Amino acid sequence: MTSWVENAWYVASWDAGITSTPKARTICGIPMMFYRKLDRSVVAMRDACPHRMLPLSMGIKEGDSIRCKYHGLKLGPDGVAEEMPLRNDPVNKRICAETFAVHERHRFVWVWIGDKDKADPALIPDLWPCSADGWTFDGGYYHIACDYRLMIDNLMDLTHETHVHSSSIGQPEIMEAPLECEVKGDKVELWRWMSGIDAPPFWREALGKEGPVDRWQICQFLLPSSVMIDVGVAPVDAGATLANHDQGVRGMVVDCMTPETETSHHYFWGMARNFDINDVGFTARFKAQQGGVFAEDKVILEAQQQAIEQNPDLKMNSYSIDQGGVRARQIIARAIRAKEEQGA
Amino acid sequence: MTSWVENAWYVASWDAGITSTPKARTICGIPMMFYRKLDRSVVAMRDACPHRMLPLSMGIKEGDSIRCKYHGLKLGPDGVAEEMPLRNDPVNKRICAETFAVHERHRFVWVWIGDKDKADPALIPDLWPCSADGWTFDGGYYHIACDYRLMIDNLMDLTHETHVHSSSIGQPEIMEAPLECEVKGDKVELWRWMSGIDAPPFWREALGKEGPVDRWQICQFLLPSSVMIDVGVAPVDAGATLANHDQGVRGMVVDCMTPETETSHHYFWGMARNFDINDVGFTARFKAQQGGVFAEDKVILEAQQQAIEQNPDLKMNSYSIDQGGVRARQIIARAIRAKEEQGA
Amino acid sequence: MTSWVENAWYVASWDAGITSTPKARTICGIPMMFYRKLDRSVVAMRDACPHRMLPLSMGIKEGDSIRCKYHGLKLGPDGVAEEMPLRNDPVNKRICAETFAVHERHRFVWVWIGDKDKADPALIPDLWPCSADGWTFDGGYYHIACDYRLMIDNLMDLTHETHVHSSSIGQPEIMEAPLECEVKGDKVELWRWMSGIDAPPFWREALGKEGPVDRWQICQFLLPSSVMIDVGVAPVDAGATLANHDQGVRGMVVDCMTPETETSHHYFWGMARNFDINDVGFTARFKAQQGGVFAEDKVILEAQQQAIEQNPDLKMNSYSIDQGGVRARQIIARAIRAKEEQGA
Repeated sequence: MTSWVENAWYVASWDAGITSTPKARTICGIPMMFYRKLDRSVVAMRDACPHRMLPLSMGIKEGDSIRCKYHGLKLGPDGVAEEMPLRNDPVNKRICAETFAVHERHRFVWVWIGDKDKADPALIPDLWPCSADGWTFDGGYYHIACDYRLMIDNLMDLTHETHVHSSSIGQPEIMEAPLECEVKGDKVELWRWMSGIDAPPFWREALGKEGPVDRWQICQFLLPSSVMIDVGVAPVDAGATLANHDQGVRGMVVDCMTPETETSHHYFWGMARNFDINDVGFTARFKAQQGGVFAEDKVILEAQQQAIEQNPDLKMNSYSIDQGGVRARQIIARAIRAKEEQGA
Repeated sequence: MTSWVENAWYVASWDAGITSTPKARTICGIPMMFYRKLDRSVVAMRDACPHRMLPLSMGIKEGDSIRCKYHGLKLGPDGVAEEMPLRNDPVNKRICAETFAVHERHRFVWVWIGDKDKADPALIPDLWPCSADGWTFDGGYYHIACDYRLMIDNLMDLTHETHVHSSSIGQPEIMEAPLECEVKGDKVELWRWMSGIDAPPFWREALGKEGPVDRWQICQFLLPSSVMIDVGVAPVDAGATLANHDQGVRGMVVDCMTPETETSHHYFWGMARNFDINDVGFTARFKAQQGGVFAEDKVILEAQQQAIEQNPDLKMNSYSIDQGGVRARQIIARAIRAKEEQGA
Repeated sequence: MTSWVENAWYVASWDAGITSTPKARTICGIPMMFYRKLDRSVVAMRDACPHRMLPLSMGIKEGDSIRCKYHGLKLGPDGVAEEMPLRNDPVNKRICAETFAVHERHRFVWVWIGDKDKADPALIPDLWPCSADGWTFDGGYYHIACDYRLMIDNLMDLTHETHVHSSSIGQPEIMEAPLECEVKGDKVELWRWMSGIDAPPFWREALGKEGPVDRWQICQFLLPSSVMIDVGVAPVDAGATLANHDQGVRGMVVDCMTPETETSHHYFWGMARNFDINDVGFTARFKAQQGGVFAEDKVILEAQQQAIEQNPDLKMNSYSIDQGGVRARQIIARAIRAKEEQGA
């Protein structure tokens, strides 16, 4: 039994991270290789030659096929043998490497973990701000040596900003607004609505006008392991509501955590926004700043993972501020059980 | 079952090694954090926040309290919560980090491993030369990647000096005096008494006069894991005896081994003496020399630990020279059994 | 149960690799120490002092004996105690370190793994070209982090040259000649005979004349873990046959794989030849080139070992080109079973 949900889509890479050259990455414990075909679609294949198991990512691309570096077995993008090591040997079409369903959406390449015939692109988490008209989206990647659920805990809780990010985005004031939480099916929402306050400098500049604003922070957990944080301000007289708050400036922090092993994950982070969307300088500066903030989380989370391993007699406790993470973990655990009962 | 005695005091640090800034150190398998309060007394606490387990040693000191770097839970020096992550949340006083009994004596900070209510300072090993009037004491620290009992074996045997320390303190002559050994309750004593010999240069200079001397080497093992080695000379006509030999110059090598894991330990070493006690230059030179000698032991002991692991079909054997270590190990094993029978 | 055959000779070192100074090397899971006596014969001893297990290879040579660096126990080349740590203590002749049968042949030092009384030098694999009149032999050593059987697979298959060694010795043409394989008792032979072809540049230069040649490649596996590859050309009218082909120029690639652990081995490789045998410049150049080629195999084989470990749900498959390795593994497995049934 794993700590992650199966029959689900996980981010394998940023779209730009996969080219015609094979890239090796372990997803949910499975060594995989990814590359693009000439038509730009993405291939995901077990990173082990069906012959003698050399990683296929060490191989040579020939058109859309891959030739193993060891004995030259050539496999098509469907994983099926196209040429044997001895070129004159008849090709045994039962020789094949496992392939995985992939789909490109929201600037990410997603890979399906589970029963391949259930891989429905409609099940990809709806990270709509990453690809909606009038929005722009960019971000980065970190390898994090901790259970991916510790990162979900982190993102579903905004109080840690005060301490972990004290030199950048942390502010004691933000702690004072009441916090609300709601589970909606497989989603968890956690939000603060601050009405009629002064906008902080960053948002005042983005909004481009003075005066009192409504300000919000809305964290949303989506199965199997994404978190979106809706942030922004609108003039107080514009009538923004929790349901509709596009009257001002709005950003969406987008984070996708893909398990690598039980104690490590791939962390894809970024920021979508619906203002100044053609200002590439702003995009680059914001990405650099966000990268700095998440690097602070990396230090904390990796130390937390080690402390968990070094204190096997203790366990974590949860307080009011942890309700978002607690509920996200409940939804994950429920989905894992459901999959198991199906299989049983 | 561990290889170390519980319900016992272990050295956590030299007194100067603990300041107001938290220091992380694993003692007998337990990750701990140490710091001094404003009144200079020492706090020892489990190095894991009771909230999400981040090491508290990464936290921020506020007066005598510690605030966790992750979500800001603030704990007093008694480990009990003083402020929740959300400052307005009512404080749950049942939230606390485990604390450990500590006591400062003989220039060391001692921590109690076992049942806290049995932590009686009277049980601290009597390393009297480290704090007696007319004596001075200083030394250093090494991390040693071996079972702490291998270091006890090493210190309860003076014959290895000839080979391991051939370039410094080793001398073939020392091997010729007969060796005596006696177990007194929980102590082991092992000694050589050399009567009417010429003092070696170091001791002749310390004594400050010519002529035949009595010379002694008395190793003493004390539970749970200290060794003191009484060394010195006295003029032969001064009437020095095993029981009373303060007629000349006397030094006491003091070594405390604190288990970190089953295969590593903290090694606190030093030298107390009752001559030239205000000569700080002598103290510094002697400490540097002693550090060089014990670094030679570190190489040997870590290689020995690895050989033990790499030859699982073999076991160590003991000859006459090992009787001190053998008896110290018997006393340790007996104390471990006694503690277990108590618990059963 | 190990993956290697017991009651067999394994190469411990090149002859020049063992001198009067102790050398530590783990053979088939056993830490050993090797050195030469004054009469140049080789001693192999368990690399752990029978006293406190310090590696004997850290000790001091005294004549043909070794004195442990820790307490000075002195052992003769037969492993038996010659002097106790206290020199005046009576020597206990039952104190001894395990020794191993060794034999020097074919430029290698061989060590016997298994029942010592069965260590018959006649059982050393017959690597005759390494020491025959009219031949010269030299080569090198690599430590390889993979199961030794993966290297046997590699050497018993010449098709990988095209892909792994594409920049050096690989040639697509070589793939076209038919391959034959035969098991003869404990040997596997795998060969190609190419008749009436043009000699490639290397062999044309070695032969020193123009015209069509017979060319051969004959791989031979020998228990427990050696492979010899007979390569060369002869003028087509000289009447060379598989059984007798010394009419032209001939080389013999010699490879001995000695298990270190289940996932690492010592790789001794070289080339014997019967032409230009006094041209030391040729020998040096050829050794450098061969070292470069085998370094390419090292990269592949270590990646293969890791892929095997990272894909525990998959297993290797074998095609026609793998028949040599498959049969060599069958012979190894049969020998392991035979030894076990003997012991049962």
